[in-house]
Order: sequence, then structure tokens, then C-alpha cells
Amino acid sequence: MQKNRQTTIIDIAKQLGVSPSTVSRALHNHPSISAETKKNVLAMAEKHSYQPNLLALSLLNKKTGIIGIVVPEITSYFFATVISGVQDMVSSAGYKLLICQSNESFEEEKKLLQDMTLLRVDGVLISPTFRTKTFGHFERLQRAGIPMVIFDRDCPHFEADKVLVDSYDGAYQAVEYLIKTGCQHIAHIAGPIAFPTFKQRLDGYLNAHYDNNIPIRSELIVYSNGFSSDYGVDAAMQLMANNDRVDAIFAVNDAVAIGAICVIREKGYRVPEDISVVGFDDESYAQYYYPPLSTVWQPVYELGMLSAKIVLDHFASKEQRENYRYEVLKPELVIRESSISID
Amino acid sequence: MQKNRQTTIIDIAKQLGVSPSTVSRALHNHPSISAETKKNVLAMAEKHSYQPNLLALSLLNKKTGIIGIVVPEITSYFFATVISGVQDMVSSAGYKLLICQSNESFEEEKKLLQDMTLLRVDGVLISPTFRTKTFGHFERLQRAGIPMVIFDRDCPHFEADKVLVDSYDGAYQAVEYLIKTGCQHIAHIAGPIAFPTFKQRLDGYLNAHYDNNIPIRSELIVYSNGFSSDYGVDAAMQLMANNDRVDAIFAVNDAVAIGAICVIREKGYRVPEDISVVGFDDESYAQYYYPPLSTVWQPVYELGMLSAKIVLDHFASKEQRENYRYEVLKPELVIRESSISID
Repeated sequence: MQKNRQTTIIDIAKQLGVSPSTVSRALHNHPSISAETKKNVLAMAEKHSYQPNLLALSLLNKKTGIIGIVVPEITSYFFATVISGVQDMVSSAGYKLLICQSNESFEEEKKLLQDMTLLRVDGVLISPTFRTKTFGHFERLQRAGIPMVIFDRDCPHFEADKVLVDSYDGAYQAVEYLIKTGCQHIAHIAGPIAFPTFKQRLDGYLNAHYDNNIPIRSELIVYSNGFSSDYGVDAAMQLMANNDRVDAIFAVNDAVAIGAICVIREKGYRVPEDISVVGFDDESYAQYYYPPLSTVWQPVYELGMLSAKIVLDHFASKEQRENYRYEVLKPELVIRESSISID
Repeated sequence: MQKNRQTTIIDIAKQLGVSPSTVSRALHNHPSISAETKKNVLAMAEKHSYQPNLLALSLLNKKTGIIGIVVPEITSYFFATVISGVQDMVSSAGYKLLICQSNESFEEEKKLLQDMTLLRVDGVLISPTFRTKTFGHFERLQRAGIPMVIFDRDCPHFEADKVLVDSYDGAYQAVEYLIKTGCQHIAHIAGPIAFPTFKQRLDGYLNAHYDNNIPIRSELIVYSNGFSSDYGVDAAMQLMANNDRVDAIFAVNDAVAIGAICVIREKGYRVPEDISVVGFDDESYAQYYYPPLSTVWQPVYELGMLSAKIVLDHFASKEQRENYRYEVLKPELVIRESSISID
């Protein structure tokens, strides 16, 4: 296995007995260099796998062609799909994407943004950790003149370009639909409400009740500490153990919903005849679940595309914009067979 | 919104009326600089968000601290989980991870590797596209002395460090289990066999038949052009339309398996009483599916950890190794309720 250092312009110049500037000009196809010399230089460069040094170039032209994105976690369907939208948009504009995950660690988020500044990325997209309550690291990015877009998770006390999904509205749609189908005892398996997104879903659940004059019963709201199917199982067990009447469950996401359905089935109840279940996210398996899962679809890919476009727009326009962009995308309720239908 | 250029050492020096070298030494805590000057320099650096230029530094010490990873697609559970394993390993060693996706495009893969070379990444992990049949771009990486690990998808005609999962063995285990439970008419919904992984699963299916003296019937093998649930639906429709007797389906992955189960159910058959179904991957929803899905679990996170560790080992050892590493991880059959059990 070879561990050679990389070939430089000077190496090529020495081997051919010409000056380094001749090599450089030949590689850039300068008209002052003869076709013969160009041919020799290119052959030698190819032979030694010569690569121009992008880092050195970027010091000169101040552009790396890299856009950075920081997500709390990369393994979720949600963020993976956002990244896919971002990637397609930035690739088509000729940019590379540097993807990093903070693992919900505020310290890691600060470190990643500092690294990105040091690397001279041209722009940053970030979905903050749910622990991000101070914004000095964002301000440093702005002061360094690096365009930044915050997506999915809002920071209400910090001004920047933002692209969000209206989680409140999605939850409201789901719960109002359940009410219209005649459900009167709708439980909610809430996610950790330290996450603004999950707090908004809880608020949507609550306000759909208020607006439709259905009393809220706190014993029908279970707060889980996570949002995988295991938590759905635990929460549903807790709910069913209370012996309170439940005719519907609005789960904070699809993973929790399918965990809950397993418990409902185990207890001998039918979905949706006894208990309607509605999830959130429209995961790839939702329509193939049994019964096919009613859920709230989010324009996740579009969220990625739009966030990337806002960063790219910064590069295109020389002028400074007066106001930050604030885009809120609307989710849509998808009714399948895990919830009873309106008569 | 400010679009300032970044503050340099020279700017700080001018503002404080000292020399740039004084500023530089103060920032590096050089003993020749007074505590008072250090304090002033640090305060000014903080005020103007001074960041040392990592690109310039990397030109000097030839290290960027960045490891690059190229995956065919980032939205799959499989690759997202690999990335998670890689990230945890490289982060703990103080490295940053540059994640890129080739979208199964050979041209894009070549471009990404060239970009990574230009960026002077310290190492590369790559899962090649299924169209990657020539390896000039890998050889250039090796010649440039950049450690490289190929993971998940083998390139049989190219020598490098490799970490793979034994897909053949996983398929063999699944089909042999189905045979032992008494199934005699086992269908296979194969993925696109241009992907070596899917070809290996087909081979496992075939050899489990040979070894157990069960005749192969070509009409029970359906080749699908993709590997999402939609393809599972199409393939199962095709299979059921033939009116051939089928008592089990081994699907190329879980997504295809749940698509097939929807069709089986629609045609009025029961899973597993009439038809056993086994998938591959053990997706997060598999155990919460109805019926809980029998499938093949792969050590995906471990695959990521090990691949990263092999790259990191290169940095630790000054010596060149004689042989490439070739690691094959074993998958495990997970029996749940979508397949009948051995009496």
C-alpha cells in the first residue's frame, strides 16, 4: 500500500525541466503555452495523479463550494429525507454538502459550527438541538458573513432565515377529524415536550378540544420520554391500565402509533372499531401497516429543497436583504383505515 | 444581516497597535508575550469573532481532521445506521465526518472522490454504486496515500480494506428455516440482481434448496426492479396471479415483505397459516408489524464502527501493512410470527 505524498506543480516542473509557472499555465490551458508542452504536462500530471490543491485555491478565491448541514440525528426518516432534498438542490447548483449530526448535544452543535466556520463553508443549514437555548454560536456565524437557515425546529428568540413545518396545524387537523368521526375520549401519547415540535402537537390536540367544546381530561394525556415504538408500547400500557374509556389515540408519531396498536390488539380491542389510531409523519411503512395507518404527512423533502434554496439565493444576490425569510409549510392529514370514517 | 469578511490576525494587530506576530503568539499563549497583551488580544479576537483559518493551517500540517464517507443513498435505514456507527467512532477519535451520497451514479462517485482528495481528507469510507465496475478513481485515492475502506458492497476485482455483511448466509439461514418448518413451495422476491447484495441473497435462496434436495422452480422467483414496498406489492401480485402453489415467500428486504403481505391478505390468505413470510434487514417497524415480521438482522451499526476503526488504525500506525483487511460480519435470523414455527 503506497503512502506517497501528493504530487505538486514543482515536482512536475522538475521532471519536465520547465518552470513551475509553465506547468501551472499549461494545466489551466493558457494560450502562451504550446500544444506540445500542454500535452507533456497533462501526461505527467495524469501519471503522478496530480490534483490541484483545493484548500490553497479556496484561500485565494474565498469559496470552498461547500454547504454545511447540522441535524440532531441522521438515522431518522425525517432528517434523512430533509438531507435528500437539500442534497438534490445544492448538487444541481454545483455545491457539495457537508453533513454533520449533533446527537442532540448543545456542546457538539457549537463545536460543529466552529469547525464549519474554520473550514470556510459558504453557507449553513441547521436544525438545532432541543437543548439550544442560547445563540452565541449562531451569532458568530452571522457575524462571519456565512448565510444560515434554521429549519424544522424554531428558535423563537433568535432571528434568522427559517423554514418550518406547522406541527400544530397537523395535530389540530388529526384531532378535529377524530372528533368529527364521533370520538369523545381521545387520548394523546405526547413526545418529550422539551422538543418544540412535540409541544406544538400537544397544543394542537388541546386546542382542537377547546374549539369543539370537548373537555380535556388530563388522564388521557401520557407523556413519553422518547419517540420510538418501545415508548408507544409503554405509554399505551399505562393508558389502558387506567381503565378510562378511550375511543381514539392520537400518537406523536407513526413509530409510537404502531407500538400502541400492538398493545391495543394484545388487550383484545380492535383498531379502528374499538379504538381509532392516528400517527404523524407518514413513514414509508404507514400505508402497508395493518390496518393501514391514518397519519399526518409532512412536506419533508420540500422542506430540504426550500431551505437549501434560501442559502443559494444568498450567493446569487449581492445585496443584503432587509428581512429574514420565515417559511411555514403545511402538513396534510392522510386518512386510512386505522381510524373510523365519518358516516 | 451582516456580510462582513472574517477578521484576520492583521486586523487585530492594527486595532491594538502591535505586530501581527505578537497577536499570533498571544493567541498561541507564547511565553514571550505579557499577560496584559494576551488579555487584550483575546478580548479583541472575541469581539471580532476571530477564527484561525483551518485551511491555511492544514496546508502547513497536512491534516484536516476530516474523514469522508460516500454512500449510494442516505435515506435508507441501512446506510443511515452505518453512518451513525461511523460518526460515533470518528467523533470519539476527534475527527469530523464529511458525508456524501452518490445516488447510485458512477460519475457522481468519481466526482465526490476527487473533491475529497482536493479537500485533503485524511481517510475515505465508501460503499460503491452498483454501476462501479472500473476502479481508476479508487486507485488514485490509494496512490495519493489516503487510507480507504470499502464497506457493504464488495468490488471483487479490486484490492482494498473491506468490511462486508454475509448476505448469502443470511438468505441461506432464512430459507433453510422455512424448509425445516415444512414449506415446500418457497417463492423469492428478488431485488435488482445488478446489486451484488441482492444477487447474494438469491444465491443463498438457491443453495438452501440444492443442499436440502428441494427442486428449484423458476416460476417461484420474481425479479423486481426496486426494493420499496410498492415493488413488493407488484411482485406478489405477479406471483399470486400464476396460481402456482406458494406456501412461503422469502422477500429481499422488509419493505418488500410488508408490500407482499398486503397482497396476500387482500387475496384472502393468512400469514403465516397459509403463507409464511420472511424479510431481510430487521427494520425498526418489523417487530411491531402485524404479524410481527420474521427477518434477518444485520450488524449494521457494528459495520460502521469497524469500517471507521480500520481507517483510524491507519493513522495510528506509521508502518505500512502487508495485507488488506477483509472482514465479513454475520447476520442473524430473527424468528417472529410471520412464519410458521418448527413443530
